[in-house]
Amino acid sequence: MRHKLVPFFEPSSVAIIGASGVPGKPGHEVIKNIQANGYSGKVYPVNPKGGEILGIDVCSSIAALPRDIDVAVIILPAAVTAQAMRECADQGIRHFVLSSGGFAEVDEAGAKIQRELESLIRERGLQVLGPNTSGHTSTPQGFTSTFFPQGKIRRGRVSYIAQTGNFGTHTLKYILTGEHFGVARVVGLGNKVGLDETDAIEYLAQDPETAAILVYIESFKRPHRFLEVAREVTRRKPIVLLKSGATESGRQAAVAHTAAMASPDRIVDGMLRQAGVVRISDYSNLVRAGKALSMMPLPAGNGVSFLAPSGAMLAVLSDYCERLGLHIPPMEPENVKRLQDISPPYIRMRNPVDIWPAALSVGVEAAYRDGMEIVLQDPAVNAVVPVMMLTPETGVPDPGFIVELAKKYPHKPILVTFSGDKGAMDEYKAALEPRGIPTFPMIEEPFAALAIMDRCRRAMNRPE
Amino acid sequence: MRHKLVPFFEPSSVAIIGASGVPGKPGHEVIKNIQANGYSGKVYPVNPKGGEILGIDVCSSIAALPRDIDVAVIILPAAVTAQAMRECADQGIRHFVLSSGGFAEVDEAGAKIQRELESLIRERGLQVLGPNTSGHTSTPQGFTSTFFPQGKIRRGRVSYIAQTGNFGTHTLKYILTGEHFGVARVVGLGNKVGLDETDAIEYLAQDPETAAILVYIESFKRPHRFLEVAREVTRRKPIVLLKSGATESGRQAAVAHTAAMASPDRIVDGMLRQAGVVRISDYSNLVRAGKALSMMPLPAGNGVSFLAPSGAMLAVLSDYCERLGLHIPPMEPENVKRLQDISPPYIRMRNPVDIWPAALSVGVEAAYRDGMEIVLQDPAVNAVVPVMMLTPETGVPDPGFIVELAKKYPHKPILVTFSGDKGAMDEYKAALEPRGIPTFPMIEEPFAALAIMDRCRRAMNRPE
Repeated sequence: MRHKLVPFFEPSSVAIIGASGVPGKPGHEVIKNIQANGYSGKVYPVNPKGGEILGIDVCSSIAALPRDIDVAVIILPAAVTAQAMRECADQGIRHFVLSSGGFAEVDEAGAKIQRELESLIRERGLQVLGPNTSGHTSTPQGFTSTFFPQGKIRRGRVSYIAQTGNFGTHTLKYILTGEHFGVARVVGLGNKVGLDETDAIEYLAQDPETAAILVYIESFKRPHRFLEVAREVTRRKPIVLLKSGATESGRQAAVAHTAAMASPDRIVDGMLRQAGVVRISDYSNLVRAGKALSMMPLPAGNGVSFLAPSGAMLAVLSDYCERLGLHIPPMEPENVKRLQDISPPYIRMRNPVDIWPAALSVGVEAAYRDGMEIVLQDPAVNAVVPVMMLTPETGVPDPGFIVELAKKYPHKPILVTFSGDKGAMDEYKAALEPRGIPTFPMIEEPFAALAIMDRCRRAMNRPE
Repeated sequence: MRHKLVPFFEPSSVAIIGASGVPGKPGHEVIKNIQANGYSGKVYPVNPKGGEILGIDVCSSIAALPRDIDVAVIILPAAVTAQAMRECADQGIRHFVLSSGGFAEVDEAGAKIQRELESLIRERGLQVLGPNTSGHTSTPQGFTSTFFPQGKIRRGRVSYIAQTGNFGTHTLKYILTGEHFGVARVVGLGNKVGLDETDAIEYLAQDPETAAILVYIESFKRPHRFLEVAREVTRRKPIVLLKSGATESGRQAAVAHTAAMASPDRIVDGMLRQAGVVRISDYSNLVRAGKALSMMPLPAGNGVSFLAPSGAMLAVLSDYCERLGLHIPPMEPENVKRLQDISPPYIRMRNPVDIWPAALSVGVEAAYRDGMEIVLQDPAVNAVVPVMMLTPETGVPDPGFIVELAKKYPHKPILVTFSGDKGAMDEYKAALEPRGIPTFPMIEEPFAALAIMDRCRRAMNRPE
């Protein structure tokens, strides 16, 4: 059976109620975004003035629309939204994105309109995203309902659900301009008058385009159902979730934001853990984990090896790994011997790997290439983080060897970080990420991302 | 009385024992670095071949050197280092930087040579940095003893002490190429055969060029004396310290690195806290805190305000602040009213500040400018973090207004972060940091830096 959200993500036809010919207006920008993303379905702008918007004929009324359009995106003042929905429903439209604000998030008058929407949804059996949503995006179909000037949204393997306008707008803008990974689906939940996070999770769980689900949320609309669904989904697909309100200050800010009463955090925490949901606490880790999960498989265990050009970094990062639940296993004697073979005799090699002496004796590229391959071959090592030593004066190796190693060892995630020249780091990022190897500017970041991946693995393999 | 380390940092004359005419060799690169940094004292390269290196006449022997040179940098194999030191001492040289490795960090033969150095130091009353040190740097004097190809090292207000070669080489390279702050002094401790972290702290404590001291260390050579000195220094100048070995894995890695036996971490932790030392656990925070301490004053209290274009970020960052010990105080009713005046009526303004509605109604620049000024004026607010909403399509304001605000409120640190377009973020960084405003790419980072600054303040004001 087709999931009830499928028409949102694979629409054959879309109506834009409140389309505008004026650049900059939401009713204009949404059409520009749809065109920029290469949507091949039908788009019907609706505006009483008629005419043409961005080369598309405008319908002068909802009644003039063809029957059974898949989705209507309504960008009208709150006060007239219900009436527009009613008219759309009369035309056989069942799926709605309500982009405008001005509902319960604003004042009592808005709350009253929102209750009217709720009745309408029940009466007519409608599926509604929003109101007050930043829209949704479906890159495999080249479709988006966002009116934030986003341009072409890069396709990728992870999907995001966010109870905040920021994610689908500014944070996604950062991902598109500052990172090299893309998204499969993005859902802005808005005020959740109809669809909620549980519906979205259910859809993404069965979505072949989505390899991992990342969520930002402030409150659960149906907590028990959410946990029931999550419990099952997390055995097949990771759910990484950031829920604010973990502290009293955060709870107050969340209440100010969405007026949602937050549940006692310790209880939430325990229940999410039981349901296999990987809860995180940094907003930035939504981006870091999204990148890692987009590009790399989950590790098969928590055994990590890393190579750094500094004993200090090895020591600090060992502390960091232990805090994060990552294990730095001893390697097989044969592999230790092979590491020893590329290093000067004075250094006693072990895991983690001090690569500096080897770099001095066999060169930077050979040391990292051979060193990484040795640790990748060790059965106790499930993931590898090279801290690349990069300075133009001592030679910056072509990063191609890391791509080759990732291809040769496809089941062991490789996450790259750096020590040295910023320009060389940027070149590595630009060279590696489009070829599927994630990089992170600061040395703790790949471990934070890897620890999240490892928790996803543990959730997936947890006992019944 | 002049501190015994002064000649290292303000040398009038320097001998390079083991100078080389071959580019790439340590004995060559060190002279190149000294020249690149604009050192105005005398440099005497020593090499039996004589001739000229980089335009400087070479002494063919140590005996041929003039008397009483301030510092000798010895870049010779371990086996002949002691003999060279002896000859230098005969020429009246008292201060040495021993750059070579091959001592106790390597094997028993090296340890034996190191013990020989120790005797020599005692016998002749010498001051020795190293061996196995990445050298030291003194930007006010345009001097460095590092042979790592560093080029001109930017002058700044913070100083670093590191028991690792990485800091003075690759990490400093990152700071010079990726950041806009500089350093006053950098000391690589190496094997600490003579001078140790306590000597360095004592020197930096009385150094007017050093506003804050950052330290990476694996073991304390004289723990009791260190604590005694630190206890006094931290009332006047912050000491931020990263000590690895906080966990069993880190301890093992530290032992492998410097063969130093680490003390039980909980005891170290408590003693450092009592001495007012701000201990951190992330290597990257040596950079982030260095930047913040370089550019901004310490806050006068732990009251923070932040402005973000997203209720979600406000909630998540509120959680983060509470975890870090930062307080988000309520503001004076008058200031709340002023925030309300720049915002649409539907949003109830408070601290932290949801700036998005104001940005929509009065424009991005006006909203942030007025919003920041209002919170900066509030007596309960000691520091401000604007999360700048930056997308070219919705308009990126000129960052000049932040510079003006920082000038107008010089006692309240301002740390900037972003949400939006990467290119615009980079432009902000390039525009703000050279004018003294620190920026951080990910939204949690300025709070991590601010929390360190706040701990420095608390240490400074702690009761007797």
